[in-house]
Amino acid sequence: MGKGRLEAFSDGVLAIIITIMVLELKVPHDPTMAALEKLWPVFLSYVLSFVYVGIYWNNHHHMLHAGAKVSGGVLWANLHLLFWLSLFPFATGWMGENHFAPLPTALYGVVLLMAAIAYYILQQRIVAANGPQSVLATALGSDWKGKASPVVYVVAIAVAPFSHWIANALYVLVALVWLVPDRRIERRLTGG
Amino acid sequence: MGKGRLEAFSDGVLAIIITIMVLELKVPHDPTMAALEKLWPVFLSYVLSFVYVGIYWNNHHHMLHAGAKVSGGVLWANLHLLFWLSLFPFATGWMGENHFAPLPTALYGVVLLMAAIAYYILQQRIVAANGPQSVLATALGSDWKGKASPVVYVVAIAVAPFSHWIANALYVLVALVWLVPDRRIERRLTGG
Amino acid sequence: MGKGRLEAFSDGVLAIIITIMVLELKVPHDPTMAALEKLWPVFLSYVLSFVYVGIYWNNHHHMLHAGAKVSGGVLWANLHLLFWLSLFPFATGWMGENHFAPLPTALYGVVLLMAAIAYYILQQRIVAANGPQSVLATALGSDWKGKASPVVYVVAIAVAPFSHWIANALYVLVALVWLVPDRRIERRLTGG
Amino acid sequence: MGKGRLEAFSDGVLAIIITIMVLELKVPHDPTMAALEKLWPVFLSYVLSFVYVGIYWNNHHHMLHAGAKVSGGVLWANLHLLFWLSLFPFATGWMGENHFAPLPTALYGVVLLMAAIAYYILQQRIVAANGPQSVLATALGSDWKGKASPVVYVVAIAVAPFSHWIANALYVLVALVWLVPDRRIERRLTGG
Repeated sequence: MGKGRLEAFSDGVLAIIITIMVLELKVPHDPTMAALEKLWPVFLSYVLSFVYVGIYWNNHHHMLHAGAKVSGGVLWANLHLLFWLSLFPFATGWMGENHFAPLPTALYGVVLLMAAIAYYILQQRIVAANGPQSVLATALGSDWKGKASPVVYVVAIAVAPFSHWIANALYVLVALVWLVPDRRIERRLTGG
Repeated sequence: MGKGRLEAFSDGVLAIIITIMVLELKVPHDPTMAALEKLWPVFLSYVLSFVYVGIYWNNHHHMLHAGAKVSGGVLWANLHLLFWLSLFPFATGWMGENHFAPLPTALYGVVLLMAAIAYYILQQRIVAANGPQSVLATALGSDWKGKASPVVYVVAIAVAPFSHWIANALYVLVALVWLVPDRRIERRLTGG
Repeated sequence: MGKGRLEAFSDGVLAIIITIMVLELKVPHDPTMAALEKLWPVFLSYVLSFVYVGIYWNNHHHMLHAGAKVSGGVLWANLHLLFWLSLFPFATGWMGENHFAPLPTALYGVVLLMAAIAYYILQQRIVAANGPQSVLATALGSDWKGKASPVVYVVAIAVAPFSHWIANALYVLVALVWLVPDRRIERRLTGG
Repeated sequence: MGKGRLEAFSDGVLAIIITIMVLELKVPHDPTMAALEKLWPVFLSYVLSFVYVGIYWNNHHHMLHAGAKVSGGVLWANLHLLFWLSLFPFATGWMGENHFAPLPTALYGVVLLMAAIAYYILQQRIVAANGPQSVLATALGSDWKGKASPVVYVVAIAVAPFSHWIANALYVLVALVWLVPDRRIERRLTGG
């Protein structure tokens, strides 16, 4: 079964998620600097989420490029991932509007955590559909980033009630680690 | 005539429907657990509709994969299906915001029913365009799920004024039955 | 130059226009039949516009299928068409919310008229890029539908201040005439 | 690595940006000419931004058509461009609603400037990935439009507090210059 339509549908959903998030940046009524300054936290939370969705799109792109075959289970694992990503605009908006308050920060972490788990499940499904000798399976290697991220999210969620700044710093940290695209797969595909 | 653009357009509409539904989950103003808890019914109705749109996307994907030829009638039957699916965000939001009250629950069933009928018409059109010996025609077999679902929706609509919980349980039941992708077509395509 | 991306972009914009129009169907707060009945005119205007966007998508699909080559002028003529189509949600919402009042009905006609003119320009550009012997050029023939529609829109706009019902009936009439896909092109492509 | 998905994702985001901008054109409640006239500045700012997004889509299309290879750096440079373009609806809405007041006009220029810089970076990345002998590299030539535009934006931002009309006239001027598609690349591809 072709993966083209799976990619197209995922691209569509991710493109809309990114663009809908920006709607939380509501147009202020008066043309003053003060009105603009109030949007600062919403803007920051938008930047963070934009980077996260970008990371997911990038890695999703690499993963499907490496894994050629798509099964029925892969389709649903992909929809499961898209479900959690579709909650990004809500979690981002709530956190931004409340200036990174503890509870919204914790909920943001929960959505990040569930998306990370969903991504892991999808990865396993694709490996299962393509066999343990496939490019993807050998390219993944230890997958330390995929394993460490959920742990950091759990720590951040637990820390949020006490210091939401540490929690948010952890989200930024994970994003920075992932910003480097998955070179492992890229190297396998091009080099050998 | 190519089916690529039909798939692309349908994917686009389905992707936007899914993502627009989540806008009903309005960002609350205060960062409290109480504010979050109020969103519970809207969230549940979103999950149900997300699964339904996922099922439609999945089956649509399988159906078009099996039926190669596309006629002018297929294009319009497809738009007809997309029309009813485009009412999902409205029906979902009304049901969620009113805590699954009888009338919104019945209307949700009407939209499900019309979408199911539209899907059936589309399926007939594709079979007609591809001939009775096509992969799709033989793969469909008895199509008991496609025939039973509208009946269950009608029962749910009739039951909604008396017990909206039974009606909603029926919607969940149909979704669970469909969650299993259409193995018949998949088997035909891969096996023999 | 490839036309794949032109089709993909147009599909994206048309898919979003269709789905954004449904947002004018605002979810009412109370779960009563009275609340639902108030939405009747908005729903009707949505159905009309959905059919119109469907017609444009359908004909756009046929036209680009027949015309293989795409020039820079075609890209901009296409964006010009998308611009007028992007005003459908606004014109539809205004007409629906005001129960098909004269002025919104006239504006709806203006948007229909401008879109029809933009479609005609696009068609000319594609014919120019593909030559007078191309499939599209010969398939178009007299193009009486394309020529009559703008005339009817002008009549409807002029009539709207006196009878908005006649104006709206004219819009419905044109939609019905177009609902039959462009068989001329289809016949040329398949038969000869 | 294929560029198909990069194009599809960019098309999706650009299509949504264009269509979301039109949502700032809020449907007025009464069906009068006075209500429509109030929307004039919002409509004008929408037209300007539609043309700008159209220019970006057009040039993006040409650039990727000419540059065949896509690296990880190109993916992120592309997301960076999409980030700034995603702020168009916000900047457009703020400027339109405030009748092209100085501060919103200056912010609009900042977003234009950042998008232009992001486009330049993306162009450099694609040239780097395809080598100095590639079609794109030789086709770009002096790239005077790409170099002059940011300068004009900076001037417009500086001028905005004193005369927002001059600033807006400069934005219109740059748009008009770009409306001519990048013939250089087109000529190279077709002619030689």
